[in-house]
Amino acid sequence: MRISEIGEFGLIERLKDILRAEEIGDDCAVVTFDQKHLLLTTDALVEDIHFLEKIAPEALGWKAVSVNVSDIVSCGGSPLYLLVSLIIPDIDSRWVERLYEGIRKACEFYNCTVVGGNISRGEKKTIDVFALGRTAKPVLRSGAKPGETLFVSGTLGDSRAGLELLREERKDYRSFELKLIERHTRPSARVDYIKHLEKYASSCIDISDGLLQDAGHLARMSGIALEIDPKAIPISEELKAFCEDRGRDPLEYALRGGEDYQLLFTHPRKDQNPFLDMTPIGEVREGKGVFVEGREAEGGFSHF
Amino acid sequence: MRISEIGEFGLIERLKDILRAEEIGDDCAVVTFDQKHLLLTTDALVEDIHFLEKIAPEALGWKAVSVNVSDIVSCGGSPLYLLVSLIIPDIDSRWVERLYEGIRKACEFYNCTVVGGNISRGEKKTIDVFALGRTAKPVLRSGAKPGETLFVSGTLGDSRAGLELLREERKDYRSFELKLIERHTRPSARVDYIKHLEKYASSCIDISDGLLQDAGHLARMSGIALEIDPKAIPISEELKAFCEDRGRDPLEYALRGGEDYQLLFTHPRKDQNPFLDMTPIGEVREGKGVFVEGREAEGGFSHF
Repeated sequence: MRISEIGEFGLIERLKDILRAEEIGDDCAVVTFDQKHLLLTTDALVEDIHFLEKIAPEALGWKAVSVNVSDIVSCGGSPLYLLVSLIIPDIDSRWVERLYEGIRKACEFYNCTVVGGNISRGEKKTIDVFALGRTAKPVLRSGAKPGETLFVSGTLGDSRAGLELLREERKDYRSFELKLIERHTRPSARVDYIKHLEKYASSCIDISDGLLQDAGHLARMSGIALEIDPKAIPISEELKAFCEDRGRDPLEYALRGGEDYQLLFTHPRKDQNPFLDMTPIGEVREGKGVFVEGREAEGGFSHF
Repeated sequence: MRISEIGEFGLIERLKDILRAEEIGDDCAVVTFDQKHLLLTTDALVEDIHFLEKIAPEALGWKAVSVNVSDIVSCGGSPLYLLVSLIIPDIDSRWVERLYEGIRKACEFYNCTVVGGNISRGEKKTIDVFALGRTAKPVLRSGAKPGETLFVSGTLGDSRAGLELLREERKDYRSFELKLIERHTRPSARVDYIKHLEKYASSCIDISDGLLQDAGHLARMSGIALEIDPKAIPISEELKAFCEDRGRDPLEYALRGGEDYQLLFTHPRKDQNPFLDMTPIGEVREGKGVFVEGREAEGGFSHF
């Protein structure tokens, strides 16, 4: 059976059986080393699948680091060390140097270090990053409890709109459009949430595949249901302007657009921190599934 | 300038400058965590570059784990945890399951655990593994000292001969030929050397690119010269038979054939362990370069 038939997540379930590894399936692997919690994660950017040939290599380097740091953050951890595994055809070495300039800038921003890597030849450019982080208390997808509130950081849907704008390949973009493009090409991992998550969150996931799909992972792994109030979902002024222009519904972008790398997490409502851009968007209750205005919802991004 | 013009190692030097990371360039990155030494490494197998479409996926899984464990071992460490980053087209999921069966068998053999990973879509199958290990004392490429002896584990050149046999695509192979093919498709990391290296070795590298090239890395990073006695290099009976058949020189295979994943290491001659298949093949002296019967030598495998 083809992977597209059983699905990416169906395949992962089969591989877990083969490895006899029940615990696989969070943003990071949590391992214990000398009674401390280490977080391990890996994420790849593949040409034509995750990025287009013409994207600036500095932006790619930044993004490759950010998506991995985002996984560490969503487990309540701080990034420490990265390895960069590069697969590239025989291109101009300047492209690789510019990629690494983006990687270095991201490492400076996130306070982590590239300590090694590997370079292999291959047809399609692939930037595969491995990250090691640490946390005092791992925050998993499986800890949400009925009665808690569901929060999201930042605004949702911007990255998807930015990608659509990029694909238009226009010569000129308006200022709000450039901001949306920037959110797509240069996402930031929410390292400003690390301490808050480590201290308060019962569960967390970063939104890479779209709110509904990632909420679905959280609900399934916690064994609870999530009720999302669509009117509460934070939408940026830029996305509103984009959708007004085109007669589109910003909520669709927020619910199903991927690659925002915002955080979706749960804890009691009283622990909301007014100094962080966190918004309560729903409730955790007993049951299963994700509900929007009482209706069960599904959908997001799949690789296959 | 194209990567093939500046070379894989030239490119790595440029990237080190960009990252301002002097320490990059060993088999593993050594990082300190709570006053303990962690080893981090990554190595990828790419279809058409590192393996052919028709190779059994179980063998590929085994090899992908083995080449990473070999890097950990060559730094005097034991493997602990792996992440598997898979890039695959939309193929039959059975192929991936068979790959993971090979990965699981290797993990059982090496006593390490796959704790997570990632699956991305891409045109060419790529198995990118990240490994985390630990060691009481990191063994680097840079520690060889004049007066010490150069040792190698096992026999050299077998893998290269095995690859050539595979490429002949014959229906029938003789028993010694099958052994050579096995050394190529199913290399084993020398985990039986971990304790010896950790205790005695001043420097070590695993031979993935060929004896001469890897000896060159060791010599350059230690700031010493290596004198290799070609008559002392261990050659298997199988490689001798293969070369007799074809009128070839087994020494060429041993000096320049890659992917043996044997260990090349240095320490005083008196520390030789008779219970390990280690052979003294030369001496460390002041100077620079690698010399075979007094003549400076170069050559090995390059990706570009």
